[in-house]
Amino acid sequence: IEKIAVAWEPNKPLVIEEIEVAPPQANEIRIKMVATGVCHTDLYHLFEGMHEGGFPVVLGHEGAGIVESVVFAGKCRFCKNPKSNHCEKGWIADRQGEMSPAESRFTCKGKKLLQFVGTSTFSEYTVVNQMAVAKIDPAAPLDKVCLLGCGICTGFGAAVNVAQVEPGSTCAVFGLGAVGLAAVMGCHFAGAKKIIAVDINPEKFEMAKVFGATDFVNPKDRSKPISEVIAEMTNGGVDFSLECVGSVGVMRSALESCVKGWGVSVIVGWTDLCDFAARPIQLIAGRTWKGALFGGFKSRDGVPQMVQSYMDKKVKLDEFITHNMPLAQVNDAIELMKNGKWYIYILYVYIIEDLQTELYKDKH
Amino acid sequence: IEKIAVAWEPNKPLVIEEIEVAPPQANEIRIKMVATGVCHTDLYHLFEGMHEGGFPVVLGHEGAGIVESVVFAGKCRFCKNPKSNHCEKGWIADRQGEMSPAESRFTCKGKKLLQFVGTSTFSEYTVVNQMAVAKIDPAAPLDKVCLLGCGICTGFGAAVNVAQVEPGSTCAVFGLGAVGLAAVMGCHFAGAKKIIAVDINPEKFEMAKVFGATDFVNPKDRSKPISEVIAEMTNGGVDFSLECVGSVGVMRSALESCVKGWGVSVIVGWTDLCDFAARPIQLIAGRTWKGALFGGFKSRDGVPQMVQSYMDKKVKLDEFITHNMPLAQVNDAIELMKNGKWYIYILYVYIIEDLQTELYKDKH
Ligand SMILES: NC(=O)c1ccc[n+]([C@@H]2O[C@H](COP(=O)([O-])OP(=O)(O)OC[C@H]3O[C@@H](n4cnc5c(N)ncnc54)[C@H](O)[C@@H]3O)[C@@H](O)[C@H]2O)c1
Ligand SMILES: NC(=O)c1ccc[n+]([C@@H]2O[C@H](COP(=O)([O-])OP(=O)(O)OC[C@H]3O[C@@H](n4cnc5c(N)ncnc54)[C@H](O)[C@@H]3O)[C@@H](O)[C@H]2O)c1
Ligand SMILES: [Zn+2]
Ligand SMILES: [Zn+2]
Ligand SMILES: [Zn+2]
Ligand SMILES: [Zn+2]
Repeated sequence: IEKIAVAWEPNKPLVIEEIEVAPPQANEIRIKMVATGVCHTDLYHLFEGMHEGGFPVVLGHEGAGIVESVVFAGKCRFCKNPKSNHCEKGWIADRQGEMSPAESRFTCKGKKLLQFVGTSTFSEYTVVNQMAVAKIDPAAPLDKVCLLGCGICTGFGAAVNVAQVEPGSTCAVFGLGAVGLAAVMGCHFAGAKKIIAVDINPEKFEMAKVFGATDFVNPKDRSKPISEVIAEMTNGGVDFSLECVGSVGVMRSALESCVKGWGVSVIVGWTDLCDFAARPIQLIAGRTWKGALFGGFKSRDGVPQMVQSYMDKKVKLDEFITHNMPLAQVNDAIELMKNGKWYIYILYVYIIEDLQTELYKDKH
Repeated sequence: IEKIAVAWEPNKPLVIEEIEVAPPQANEIRIKMVATGVCHTDLYHLFEGMHEGGFPVVLGHEGAGIVESVVFAGKCRFCKNPKSNHCEKGWIADRQGEMSPAESRFTCKGKKLLQFVGTSTFSEYTVVNQMAVAKIDPAAPLDKVCLLGCGICTGFGAAVNVAQVEPGSTCAVFGLGAVGLAAVMGCHFAGAKKIIAVDINPEKFEMAKVFGATDFVNPKDRSKPISEVIAEMTNGGVDFSLECVGSVGVMRSALESCVKGWGVSVIVGWTDLCDFAARPIQLIAGRTWKGALFGGFKSRDGVPQMVQSYMDKKVKLDEFITHNMPLAQVNDAIELMKNGKWYIYILYVYIIEDLQTELYKDKH
């Protein structure tokens, strides 16, 4: 009997349920979850996406835990190609333009629950495809490195791998949640000389400074379009911009904030409610529009490398964590994130502290 | 007294007028035009763009002629940057999203005429900024290499410089006017193994084959979206796609025809009447959307190189030419292009044949 947080329907609090998880099938792995973060993408599915057929579902997708069995599998043409971090078997359904919740091994009250982002980490145990698992240094603190399961790799990689920010360049990061702050950290890591942090919540600026931001813009304080403000601050626009909000209007601003000729803008924020758009001349003028999932990292190699970078103090993680809570308080965490009443990030430690200590002992 | 074709207002035939061209000012060059092509962008301005303030104007922008003086000028940060082919002083006004006709040295019937794309080649003499001029091999036939002044470099470079088509890759080219055919030629030159040529006018396919296309799709013969047709032909989409039509709907199809993970789509076609758009997930799934002016070539270096490639028989030009006409027949040429009643390209030779021969003699 295991505890799991079930999202029975959109816009409603999650319900902690006790269920049995079916055993893994071919290529699947059963994992004992230790810690998981909450990412805006969880909230998106619950409050904004409104997908028919997307419920009941088990949310959560940045978790760290202990694997009970390891499986190796062949690599598809996407896994083999260094240009891509997608997989033939990935959960992403890009042609229909929606995230596709998939079959899970969870059943509750006679109903099959759906899996979210291939993981469903708001659970004491989960069963996932081996493709969704990365093996990391057993010495790593799971209640920190779980953040590398989504937001931090996403933002950091968007700057370093996707935009390929260059030393001495100018950057703008729109949105300073965990993803945006990690993007700021990535720009700083890559040697950008000017990093403009943009958020409508000025409380975020202080933390952005910690991660390396040099300039701060609150669109609410400005009458002009933000792209014009940024063009004035940078002699025509930044070399790289990153959208970490999930708003098509901000995606357009981010593109328009790039300098003509070589500006690169990366869409990181998630929404599939409407189209993003711009005038053709804005690309014809030499800008490039990209997007990325998980910061372009191939998770099986990228996550262990980022864990190592954290252990070597090259990337920060602790600074992202604002709260620690047990799984039972998942709805409090969601409310905090929804209302922006939190600084940066929320971390759940699911297992009671003693058990966690024990688990650590097991591995060390 | 010189002959010039004036577009007095949108949607009306051009009028051949006799005028005097004012002498060049600082950084400007006076050029005796020998030959010029007609590009869809000329028609766009006349029939589709409908810009207020864009008339009266002298159209034409792919010309070859003889310079009366040569000026060297400093390079701006765009000219100096190998990533870009734009210039601080370029005619492109990308932030407002429109082409900006500029002051010219032409006056007719007391009215100042506007300059088009920095050149205005539908004229016996024109005066342009030195930035708009490239010095080429004097042995090159001007009534052929004038095509390198726009369409052919645009399409070829979009494939080779901007998309950076790779050997063994799959490509799709949408629109088989001069620009699209040149893109097909570029894909072939770069070693693509499958080049899918897409046009609603099946008469274009024969010529596309000459330039290297391997597969042909007429959207009018298909009930499914073209992106699905192409996904089926290529196991999920092409590596590179090029939009050479100038339609925002086709721009979206071209993006959606790319494979997730690493597909690159380049917008070449011109329109500033509406926005192009797609769902964020289509970029987040790993596609890149680019655009380019003049195929990413820095004209001062790129045009002489392309002239050399033509002289060395590495790129074709003669095959693009379907008609030769004097300037006086400019309206016939425009009608032919407008009605698709031409195969590929129209070339004007402005100077009467004897004079042209004489000009050639001068230079050889
Ligand atoms: N592409 C991926 O792989 C991936 C992965 C994780 C998250 N995401 C997406 O990234 C986005 C950010 O995630 P998060 O967890 O950091 O979210 P978050 O809610 O913590 O942060 C969003 C920030 O954007 C700010 N904001 C809102 N409107 C703004 C505007 N108009 N201009 C500037 N700032 C504005 C908010 O104040 C907030 O600070 C979400 O859309 C999420 O779904 C994408
Ligand atoms: N970016 C640049 O630097 C640049 C330079 C030159 C031209 N252009 C633009 O490139 C475009 C092509 O120029 P051109 O001179 O080759 O034009 P063109 O009119 O000769 O060719 C356009 C072709 O597209 C085809 N077409 C129309 N609708 C289509 C559809 N829905 N699907 C597939 N094919 C379709 C037509 O049948 C035609 O063969 C124009 O928009 C022009 O303004 C851009
Ligand atoms: Zn996430
Ligand atoms: Zn794979
Ligand atoms: Zn042109
Ligand atoms: Zn310049």
